[in-house]
Amino acid sequence: MVILIGGSGYMGSAFAAELHKRQIPHQIVSRCTTDYTNFESLCRLLEKAKPSFLINAAGAVGKPNVDACELARSEAVLGNVVLPQLISNACDISGVPWAQVSSGCIYSGAKILSDGKVRIEKDLTLPHVRQIVDDSPSSVLGYSEDDSPNFSFRESPCSFYSGTKALGEEVISKAKQTYIWRLRIPFDEYDNDRNYLTKLQRYDRVYDNVNSISHRQDFVHACLDLWVSGANFGTYNVTNPGFVTSRQVVEMIQRNFKVRRAFKFWKDDEEFYRLAASAPRSNCVLDTTKLLATGVKMRPVEEAMEESLLRWSSAV
Amino acid sequence: MVILIGGSGYMGSAFAAELHKRQIPHQIVSRCTTDYTNFESLCRLLEKAKPSFLINAAGAVGKPNVDACELARSEAVLGNVVLPQLISNACDISGVPWAQVSSGCIYSGAKILSDGKVRIEKDLTLPHVRQIVDDSPSSVLGYSEDDSPNFSFRESPCSFYSGTKALGEEVISKAKQTYIWRLRIPFDEYDNDRNYLTKLQRYDRVYDNVNSISHRQDFVHACLDLWVSGANFGTYNVTNPGFVTSRQVVEMIQRNFKVRRAFKFWKDDEEFYRLAASAPRSNCVLDTTKLLATGVKMRPVEEAMEESLLRWSSAV
Repeated sequence: MVILIGGSGYMGSAFAAELHKRQIPHQIVSRCTTDYTNFESLCRLLEKAKPSFLINAAGAVGKPNVDACELARSEAVLGNVVLPQLISNACDISGVPWAQVSSGCIYSGAKILSDGKVRIEKDLTLPHVRQIVDDSPSSVLGYSEDDSPNFSFRESPCSFYSGTKALGEEVISKAKQTYIWRLRIPFDEYDNDRNYLTKLQRYDRVYDNVNSISHRQDFVHACLDLWVSGANFGTYNVTNPGFVTSRQVVEMIQRNFKVRRAFKFWKDDEEFYRLAASAPRSNCVLDTTKLLATGVKMRPVEEAMEESLLRWSSAV
Repeated sequence: MVILIGGSGYMGSAFAAELHKRQIPHQIVSRCTTDYTNFESLCRLLEKAKPSFLINAAGAVGKPNVDACELARSEAVLGNVVLPQLISNACDISGVPWAQVSSGCIYSGAKILSDGKVRIEKDLTLPHVRQIVDDSPSSVLGYSEDDSPNFSFRESPCSFYSGTKALGEEVISKAKQTYIWRLRIPFDEYDNDRNYLTKLQRYDRVYDNVNSISHRQDFVHACLDLWVSGANFGTYNVTNPGFVTSRQVVEMIQRNFKVRRAFKFWKDDEEFYRLAASAPRSNCVLDTTKLLATGVKMRPVEEAMEESLLRWSSAV
């Protein structure tokens, strides 16, 4: 039996659906029934339910976007640092293996291969970097799980949200029987405020950057496969292999939806941060070699994106 | 047997000395011997040592002052939020009662009684407030343990340090068998970078404000008395009753040490924050009624201060 914390959220509900589909018995724990932020209550629950696995899909994300976490700092620390640690302690005591849904937003930029050397570029909007991204995408390498976060409290600047997510990983990084599953910018065919495709269509202006991203169902599918197949515990970047630029996705939206209107883009970073955002944004490319090496399947990002647009539904 | 975490620090060493003086068997736990930030190690230690009580005097304070925590945010969250929660979980599992050394810096200002009404004044440097402080000190009431912190992430502005201290109290506030002992601006007769009297003598300019403060030995004495006397668990403001203004303390220094030089003061808040400080500072008056009602003794602040100056020693 699997215990699912945060099962009513955007990612949690996708886990619930996939567990249901696979006929894996599971119990969705919500704050209404169990105060899982209370150590004693959580320990009692684990003792009683004796789950074979636990998934924590709860956390503070900031609504409508990460800027909200700059103000709601208590909630960010409590949801993204204190909660993972509490769950880790409870699972440790009870001997329950578990997984934390984390985020790739603790990195900025990518590794660029040129003249046989690899260099880190934290800002992928710089013209000379962007030219490499556009002209020679195979030279753009992602951060692997061995790379330390470079968009965190330990390596400023970062958003408060990213700072807490990096710290959340840090506090559970040495725990036994623990998966850390890193999501990045979820998307799929269902219209939703959290869906990247919804966001892109609603923005007055689009911030053109470069990112690895995660198809929502592909993500939960791959995560559960990791557990079911008995892959080694540890950290995994769970994004669709490859990366996209916002401009590429906008073009795909225009082509698929036969949208005639022109999308407007922010001229540059300076304009974007001056007018649209208060916290610095993470934009990054992640390496999925470790994930794919386990045998778990994950479609290339273009394929997942094309299919989402093809099946697009704003009805659900 | 008492376990003392952070026993080599400024407050921890005072606890160690007092435990020694009282011949209470104790074990000082340092990171060198036990990684107390690791849940398993800490649980193992508690299981083996079976202490009757645990004191956590460790935490991130920011050196040379709280401004450092604005940058060292990971350390502040880890030391002031994550560590108390981890200790709380471990003590809960092991059934060990314990105490967290917290801080009164999660408040700003005082309660002012005038015309039979009590109002909150968060800024005690405002001229009309300061006049009441100077002319009618009995109208200045402190925050009690029932008052919610008003200098925290939940009530900005606050320093990052204060934000984490308030959150640290929050995460352990519902735990059983737990004391929260609030210290404020420690001082005593021994010259030390952390001693308020040392600081005041070293500043180029003094920031004149109003505060409840804690004599270091009086603090540990009162804290241990709370435990030894079996006082109810919960939160206690452990400051010397009353309050002082920086100007009053400077005058006491001048009188006692026959210092002839004039101390310079910052003209106002604006000048202080523009030139000397990056993070907002907590300045506040605390109510000690709850502490004194337990029968625990604490000298009035003036008496503790006079004696510290009388016995002043820069030799230790």
